[in-house]
Amino acid sequence: MVEYDALIIGAGILGLSTAYHIKSNHPNAQILVVDKLNAAGQANTAKSSGAFRCFFYSRTNFTLADSTAEFCRHLQDDLDVNLKLRWIGYLWLFDGKGYEQMRPVLKDLSGRGFEYKEYDENELAEELGMKTNLTDDEEAQLMGLANVHKGVFVPKAGLIDVDSLVEFYESEFAKLGGKTQYGTEVENVVVEPCTPLGILGEPFFWQDSRVVGVKTNQGMIRAKKTIVAAGAWIPSLLDALGLECYIKPKKRQIFSVKANTEALKKLLWTKGFSEVGCLPFTILPEPSVYFKPAPEEDAFWLSYGDEFLRAFQLEEDPHPEENFYRYGIYQVLLKYFPQFKDCQPFSAFAGLYAINTLDGQPLIFEENDLMVVGGASGSGIMKADAIGRIAEALFSGEEYAMLYGDRRFKVSDLGLNNRHVEPEKLVI
Amino acid sequence: MVEYDALIIGAGILGLSTAYHIKSNHPNAQILVVDKLNAAGQANTAKSSGAFRCFFYSRTNFTLADSTAEFCRHLQDDLDVNLKLRWIGYLWLFDGKGYEQMRPVLKDLSGRGFEYKEYDENELAEELGMKTNLTDDEEAQLMGLANVHKGVFVPKAGLIDVDSLVEFYESEFAKLGGKTQYGTEVENVVVEPCTPLGILGEPFFWQDSRVVGVKTNQGMIRAKKTIVAAGAWIPSLLDALGLECYIKPKKRQIFSVKANTEALKKLLWTKGFSEVGCLPFTILPEPSVYFKPAPEEDAFWLSYGDEFLRAFQLEEDPHPEENFYRYGIYQVLLKYFPQFKDCQPFSAFAGLYAINTLDGQPLIFEENDLMVVGGASGSGIMKADAIGRIAEALFSGEEYAMLYGDRRFKVSDLGLNNRHVEPEKLVI
Repeated sequence: MVEYDALIIGAGILGLSTAYHIKSNHPNAQILVVDKLNAAGQANTAKSSGAFRCFFYSRTNFTLADSTAEFCRHLQDDLDVNLKLRWIGYLWLFDGKGYEQMRPVLKDLSGRGFEYKEYDENELAEELGMKTNLTDDEEAQLMGLANVHKGVFVPKAGLIDVDSLVEFYESEFAKLGGKTQYGTEVENVVVEPCTPLGILGEPFFWQDSRVVGVKTNQGMIRAKKTIVAAGAWIPSLLDALGLECYIKPKKRQIFSVKANTEALKKLLWTKGFSEVGCLPFTILPEPSVYFKPAPEEDAFWLSYGDEFLRAFQLEEDPHPEENFYRYGIYQVLLKYFPQFKDCQPFSAFAGLYAINTLDGQPLIFEENDLMVVGGASGSGIMKADAIGRIAEALFSGEEYAMLYGDRRFKVSDLGLNNRHVEPEKLVI
Repeated sequence: MVEYDALIIGAGILGLSTAYHIKSNHPNAQILVVDKLNAAGQANTAKSSGAFRCFFYSRTNFTLADSTAEFCRHLQDDLDVNLKLRWIGYLWLFDGKGYEQMRPVLKDLSGRGFEYKEYDENELAEELGMKTNLTDDEEAQLMGLANVHKGVFVPKAGLIDVDSLVEFYESEFAKLGGKTQYGTEVENVVVEPCTPLGILGEPFFWQDSRVVGVKTNQGMIRAKKTIVAAGAWIPSLLDALGLECYIKPKKRQIFSVKANTEALKKLLWTKGFSEVGCLPFTILPEPSVYFKPAPEEDAFWLSYGDEFLRAFQLEEDPHPEENFYRYGIYQVLLKYFPQFKDCQPFSAFAGLYAINTLDGQPLIFEENDLMVVGGASGSGIMKADAIGRIAEALFSGEEYAMLYGDRRFKVSDLGLNNRHVEPEKLVI
């Protein structure tokens, strides 16, 4: 039986980036990626909103996202890989209290060289045709919605075509001789003693043991290193081994509405923020309903990341909930952006975030020849390249990873034992 | 419908201690404890090994355990509550490497006034009739078992009758007018808007909402504060609300063997360690198989806490595994203590630890009128009184709890947001 040098579970964006970077750095290594679906990036990677930003308070988050964005820019501008990058920016709308809390954060970021631009409520009302003052709206008051006080526009952010990024990693990995096997569902991780004694029932607890591969619906696959990059499915695989990864799945939903009125078209193609000439990715005041323009389909994608009351739950086929749109997102959005009146979603989908409940930042660690790469908590796409390089460095036993743009990153900073990440203060 | 001031889910030792201390401090408050079983302390509390120690590296662990032990001593010595306390001590056996790692810890503890006594390998072999040197034992070498180099005896530790402690809290709570309702299984925690609008489908995410009680197989129970003290069942209840508690269930097993030979009787009634005149609770070198004397039943209770490969899994009726004894515990024990040759368990049981995977120390926190008291990770009995007092302080909105013996304890130290506990270095 073949023993692969590395077996990667999951052909999502993190698994593929990891596979590509390992294969790039170890051209002779035998690397296999398996996925239960029939093609790459078909599970939660496909459910991404396809947005990215290089504006984070945590230096870890910033480094991961910024180096990934620069790598994507390099792919598109220098290597003609069309990722459909559109630098439309992010626009954060704050109420008075939210802005007061954000001020020291912004000041700090400004001192660190971050670019952003502030808009006051009148400019926002004017440029976006929005309602910033809800004081006279009795319903809005009952709903607890606050007035918009300021907008913070962040230019280094935008949209990316996730499928194209998936295809880049998958095809480059294949060109290097990496193997991929679809329709292969992992049933469990297999553990054997480091020094087998040939006794039935091994491994016993008094033996040192290690992960030697996985049992799948296509049979056993053996590997020197097994790398679990299975997103929301990671915790089930690890729970069975009694290993904690601090990752939990949580449903996230996106509803698409067409810009089918003059007012919505005008909003979609709002000028003045970026050279793209469309609305930025926009985040409303708390509760932070957000929406992004989807210019190629003349639409908006609307979403909200509910925390309390949204169960941690693994579902194989999560569905979007009509009432979540109708009584949730729509009601809030309508108060600030009356343009959306009577808008019905023409399509909707739901996926699972793999949330790292410790700090919301990615996890990359190894135990007993089992590596875990995940927990990106909804920002896996925008950090994918950096995460793949750090996973490669861990695979290679390096203390530091070199990210795109020659940025050194300490591998253990994303591990469990010596984890070192700053808390994020800019959470959507 | 009655609205209780506090509803406690779980009549295990932590739920009862919490209920008792709340009722003591709020005599007029309406307090209800519910449990799905038909009596108190019948779930995992009943699966405890009934051992305690006041010897921890973490000051948190020490304070919780020491104040609880002193309270129990007070109950027994001053108030004639028979808890069958036996101060038999703990005996830690270390191999050379383990002892080297432990030396700075012991030195530190010694400086903090902890009492302990060291035994060398010859004394141990002599007093316990054990084999400390396994160098010539080929099988032991294959099993990776090391020679015993030192023993560290800790006198302030021993046995407690868990049922008696359960009965104390339950009956005192009842005397104060507290209510208990058995056969009441919680199906889910119920959340309502803080300011209901009377719209179907509430609460919506744009509303502030709070826990108002629970739905049970006996109907809805409402409370101002709902306190989940359900041990291994806590994470399921919280996952459904999308709240993280960092608690996971893990099976633990105990096997009882009779001291039915002269050699085993001699071991059981080993003199010289404590005034009780029996063997201390004894922990073997890594892998740390441990056993305690059960003098009242002329037996030993044998156990081992397996980590890697022991799944995090919630089972309603966990069973002990014969092979875990036969190929695991027995094989290791036999090498060091040949007295156990051919010993078969006459009884065995399995329970679930509620493991706090952050740091193994208890968790006491509140969110949206839901309090969580748990995660004691196998040492809930020995910390029960302190945990109940801290939970009471949180319920009362106090910054500090006053533990037995007038020790102040900062409530938030066991919370999630400002958690402050020292890592434990003395883990069995």
